[in-house]
Amino acid sequence: MKKFLENLQDAKKVMATLSSACKIDLLQQMAQALLKNSQYILQENEKDMHYARENNLSTALLDRLLLTHERIEAMANAIDEIASLNEPVGRILDGWVVPSGLRIEKVSIPIGIIAIIFESRPNVTSDTAALCFKSNNVCVLKGGKEAEHSNYAITSVLQNILETNHLPKNIISLVPDSSHEGIAKLIKMDTFIDLVIPRGGEKLIEFISKNASMPVIKHDKGLCHIFIDKDANIQNAIKISINAKCQRTGVCNAMETLLVHAQIAQTLLPQLKEQYDANATKLLGCSNTKTFIDVEQASELDWGIEYLDNILSIKIVKDVNEACDHIAKYSSGHSEAIITENYSTAEYFLNHVDSSCVYLNASTRFTDGAEFGFGAEVGISTSKLHARGPMGINDLTTYKYKIYGQGNARA
Amino acid sequence: MKKFLENLQDAKKVMATLSSACKIDLLQQMAQALLKNSQYILQENEKDMHYARENNLSTALLDRLLLTHERIEAMANAIDEIASLNEPVGRILDGWVVPSGLRIEKVSIPIGIIAIIFESRPNVTSDTAALCFKSNNVCVLKGGKEAEHSNYAITSVLQNILETNHLPKNIISLVPDSSHEGIAKLIKMDTFIDLVIPRGGEKLIEFISKNASMPVIKHDKGLCHIFIDKDANIQNAIKISINAKCQRTGVCNAMETLLVHAQIAQTLLPQLKEQYDANATKLLGCSNTKTFIDVEQASELDWGIEYLDNILSIKIVKDVNEACDHIAKYSSGHSEAIITENYSTAEYFLNHVDSSCVYLNASTRFTDGAEFGFGAEVGISTSKLHARGPMGINDLTTYKYKIYGQGNARA
Repeated sequence: MKKFLENLQDAKKVMATLSSACKIDLLQQMAQALLKNSQYILQENEKDMHYARENNLSTALLDRLLLTHERIEAMANAIDEIASLNEPVGRILDGWVVPSGLRIEKVSIPIGIIAIIFESRPNVTSDTAALCFKSNNVCVLKGGKEAEHSNYAITSVLQNILETNHLPKNIISLVPDSSHEGIAKLIKMDTFIDLVIPRGGEKLIEFISKNASMPVIKHDKGLCHIFIDKDANIQNAIKISINAKCQRTGVCNAMETLLVHAQIAQTLLPQLKEQYDANATKLLGCSNTKTFIDVEQASELDWGIEYLDNILSIKIVKDVNEACDHIAKYSSGHSEAIITENYSTAEYFLNHVDSSCVYLNASTRFTDGAEFGFGAEVGISTSKLHARGPMGINDLTTYKYKIYGQGNARA
Repeated sequence: MKKFLENLQDAKKVMATLSSACKIDLLQQMAQALLKNSQYILQENEKDMHYARENNLSTALLDRLLLTHERIEAMANAIDEIASLNEPVGRILDGWVVPSGLRIEKVSIPIGIIAIIFESRPNVTSDTAALCFKSNNVCVLKGGKEAEHSNYAITSVLQNILETNHLPKNIISLVPDSSHEGIAKLIKMDTFIDLVIPRGGEKLIEFISKNASMPVIKHDKGLCHIFIDKDANIQNAIKISINAKCQRTGVCNAMETLLVHAQIAQTLLPQLKEQYDANATKLLGCSNTKTFIDVEQASELDWGIEYLDNILSIKIVKDVNEACDHIAKYSSGHSEAIITENYSTAEYFLNHVDSSCVYLNASTRFTDGAEFGFGAEVGISTSKLHARGPMGINDLTTYKYKIYGQGNARA
């Protein structure tokens, strides 16, 4: 592992100053190469599928794992799109002149070497490699064990383009030892690795957060809330509540708990239930909710569960204050929304709720790089520093100060 | 420790939305209170001084520890200055409208609860507390053992102002157990503490970086370099080299190693030596340097030492490339400078050197919050993410997205 990481230092040096034009050209070559080698990739993917079927993976997981010609085309298109993003490195973020006469420029630069640990879908391999490449970072990828052959094939195709262009192929690397022990070792190597991004299950993320000696940007769960205030527009409230729960249920920005102002519950809840029933949503509710609609009793545990399914817990609260307190206690800091027409209530909620994305009169489902206009996304950060919420390519950079003098000495 | 941290959550909630006017008023009261209670603070400081003298602390350390009426006045003035800084929270960092019709605002918010671990000078206690307060953060401070009574006295005076204004006094806290075991426990409490900032000795910083489970912003050593290129203006080169080494020697932004282009060594080095001799600087040099001036031989170890003293190592390099390689190998990523009139050489250096501050024709001594125009500084970050280089009050904030819709559901 140490030898492997030492060898990455040269790759980092080459990568740090690769020109914008060169990066675009190479990414386009990589996209072409995925298409040209799709037969090889599909054949390797079939090995993973075979193993997965033998091990009785669920239909959902099998579908996540499966590659097809269309999916490889989508992966190639994603790389082309990443190639065409605005150049993330060298942006002048700020600049000013100080009394001593120095001209200070704050400029975006690559982070360096980024380890990304993820699960399941093989397209994450090519997306992530391309995002890191576009931002002049070296990446060390660790995909799920179930996608081992697919990830190896995709990485080989990309590395081959690096080699034919006389660049170190380890600019895009797979972690050499992907066992638990290997990862445990990797996340202590802070002299070599500048950042680790874990995407995946809770246990994986907790293990890495607690044990990594370098900075970590978590892509943790989303336990998202919507609060329908007494001053809500009822039509907005229903439209958004249905959208946030039912439009897609297995995603981190879907709503898990609906908080309803006591004064609007009687009018709203029966209408809502009708719509949720039409969407076959399983509803649970607090005792108070049950006085208005016929739902299962929610237990204390329910407020803390990310269902990732067509299930919703409903709680009646007496005001925006109680809504904020509930959110402070149970939220994962991902996305929350308030539905109200009242300016002061809206401001109170938006300012008091400490989540990466707080919405007024909109669905939590918008927490997404593409919806934010970032193009391809690295993921949704649930960390509080450096990058929060949808992470675009600019979040794969940090900065330095370039300071221009004319023989300035400090007085 | 856990009980103490749990109690901080209420303080965090109160602190998160304290108004700008209220913060300014309270900070001004705190500045006044330091002056009014200076007798008490001096008397407590004398206990630390007594203990320090008994334990034969060095004159330099005794001077760092000592408080006087003038120094307390300076502390009060610093708080007043922090009070008058531009409001760091609620800045709109970015904002745009997306095709779905949502209006997105990226807004600065407090980080939450920040633990700051530092050594020696008691004024850091009041400065840091005021900076955290101004940015709506709760702080947990841990000063040096040798300044225990002084830090306790200063904190009590500030807490007293919180209490008389009906605010939780633990908004400004000292860590309850400041033993090594206490700190080891503290830095695992990531559910309560959002950020830890260690300032001080290398061992302390390494221990915290390696073991903390929350984000860390290091204030580590400065092993700063200046490279004098063959195309340097000789007068600039001499002025800046003397300033960077001799103007103040015990600081992190002072130069430790001077790299000299081989083609300018013969002209430059004798002139430089004359000036350094006049400043009583002890010079060490590589074998090549010794062919031009009479200096002690530098060992391999010297390139990696932060002398924090009037000592300088000199190395002759064949070009900017070798200078950059030397810096990549030995630098602590703090501050480096190039002296040259050549545009391309300057650009090469500024772009290839990966340090928080890279200077052209200016002294590394400018790496400082006040010199950057930030007002009071938290310190100089040697971390790569979130805050790099001089950390101003804005670096004590993170951000969230406030998203305004009109009944928007995702398609």
